[in-house]
Amino acid sequence: MTSATRILIDTDPGIDDAMAIFYALASPELEVVALTTVFGNCHTDVATVNALRLLDIAERPDIPVVEGAVAPLVMPYRGPVAFVHGTDGQGDVFLPPSSRAPLPTTAAQFIVDTVLADPDEITIVLLGPFTNMALAMMLCPGLTQHVKQIVVMGGAAFTSGNASPASEANVLNDPEAADIVFGADCPIVMAGLDVTHRITMTDDDLARFAAIDNPRAQHLAAIMPHYVRFYLERNGVHGIYVHDSTTISYLLAPELFSWRELPVRVDTGHSVCRGRTLPALRDSDEEGPWHGRRAVRILTDVDARAVIELELDHLSC
Amino acid sequence: MTSATRILIDTDPGIDDAMAIFYALASPELEVVALTTVFGNCHTDVATVNALRLLDIAERPDIPVVEGAVAPLVMPYRGPVAFVHGTDGQGDVFLPPSSRAPLPTTAAQFIVDTVLADPDEITIVLLGPFTNMALAMMLCPGLTQHVKQIVVMGGAAFTSGNASPASEANVLNDPEAADIVFGADCPIVMAGLDVTHRITMTDDDLARFAAIDNPRAQHLAAIMPHYVRFYLERNGVHGIYVHDSTTISYLLAPELFSWRELPVRVDTGHSVCRGRTLPALRDSDEEGPWHGRRAVRILTDVDARAVIELELDHLSC
Repeated sequence: MTSATRILIDTDPGIDDAMAIFYALASPELEVVALTTVFGNCHTDVATVNALRLLDIAERPDIPVVEGAVAPLVMPYRGPVAFVHGTDGQGDVFLPPSSRAPLPTTAAQFIVDTVLADPDEITIVLLGPFTNMALAMMLCPGLTQHVKQIVVMGGAAFTSGNASPASEANVLNDPEAADIVFGADCPIVMAGLDVTHRITMTDDDLARFAAIDNPRAQHLAAIMPHYVRFYLERNGVHGIYVHDSTTISYLLAPELFSWRELPVRVDTGHSVCRGRTLPALRDSDEEGPWHGRRAVRILTDVDARAVIELELDHLSC
Repeated sequence: MTSATRILIDTDPGIDDAMAIFYALASPELEVVALTTVFGNCHTDVATVNALRLLDIAERPDIPVVEGAVAPLVMPYRGPVAFVHGTDGQGDVFLPPSSRAPLPTTAAQFIVDTVLADPDEITIVLLGPFTNMALAMMLCPGLTQHVKQIVVMGGAAFTSGNASPASEANVLNDPEAADIVFGADCPIVMAGLDVTHRITMTDDDLARFAAIDNPRAQHLAAIMPHYVRFYLERNGVHGIYVHDSTTISYLLAPELFSWRELPVRVDTGHSVCRGRTLPALRDSDEEGPWHGRRAVRILTDVDARAVIELELDHLSC
């Protein structure tokens, strides 16, 4: 019997984060070792209480929560996106407080300790800005030689951005951190807008959600209308993109995806392309800023219907 | 009878520039009022002697040549690309000197004077870095209100660059100038890599060229092997891209092209995306750096075979 893949989820919950976390928790193929928190969709303190509350709903008090960075490496935090995720980050449903508290350490140190305690076995899933992982890499140079894999929701390689014409929101929230993480010395998978914008959960899918009789699905059904409204009113899109869940779908069923493998740099300049995730033109022999970087597996296409069914199946359990 | 469209060609000849210039000269629908020169494929002084020599070959001593900028607006010139165009910019065929000289003014001033002398009638075709046009716009604010149209070979909006993963060569040679020109107050057409990389002239097409019995086609046949070798050896591409000619094909037969119309900014930062031509996400209501800019007609697709036949027909005359 193959043992479960041990994953650490770094998150700023966030409506689609909540979905991804419940999806991971419902997957016997995955063992969630901790949630670490970061600013992004909401302030870090809100992300932390949300992470605790989501584990309360899932009845998983065994999983620790560790609070992380409150701001990007070298710039101010751009601020919460309440119009997407609600002022509480959870669609303005205002969950009751959790009785639990985060561990008394920092997310970056916890990532270092977790990886070193279980070398080559930890998969790190980044659902928010990459700040905690970048800090962990600075705290412990060489750390990523012992990371099994990093799977990120973030970036836009061959398509337009969403937080700006050039950049996806997680990367734009800390371009310097993202550039560090894409230089990691382990396999890196990028589930960016190239693939997440190909997966639309329809109103019918959402109705199937709402009909699932368990506390996790019921919470998601309660917070989803806020997210649906955002896509409809701001973007004219019917249905929702399940950005963060794409990382979990990839871990469960990589065969449903296609990709290109190229080294990636992030634009850290201060012009219009700040936060762009820019692949090299070729996978090798590239001079200049890409030289010596490992190729990132950039997800470019997906069997979207299969992925949605996989997620609905898991969330029904 | 419709009178010919009056075009001023700004150029750094350059093998594909030579092809575009001869193509324009062979088009009764177009009246070439002048060639202005700029650094890019070669140094400006080389561009100037090449422009004169090309007009000698075409037996058009009536068309003036005006020398332009020798360096970008705010950075040093990146240098000639002899591996593409030869040390003489013309495939190392080393043409004899011309007996003619350029006019005793600057390209930028000449552009201003030409436009103001014939308001709303001059189409400006930019085949090199956009430096001269940007300088003209600085010399004469409001100038572009009187320009009929600007058609540029340059940029990469929805595809990768060629001089860097982000940027096309003409734009990377002077990003600040390109950003000024894309802010012009007249119709702007961008024939960038999105469309020029869809037009490959094959070995068969080139053989048809070589068989054309006129001095223009014979010159092109003589210089082409250098360009063919570059595409094969550096890029593994059989056949050649006729980048610069695409501007002329558009002027002759816009119905062969499709496009998107969005305002464009150029990344003038100093990170990996320097020189990227970045369209706004939407054509209106865009806040930030795109606000108030006219939409640029970004050519995105083409009937490539029809365009190549059109060019071969013209060059056969």
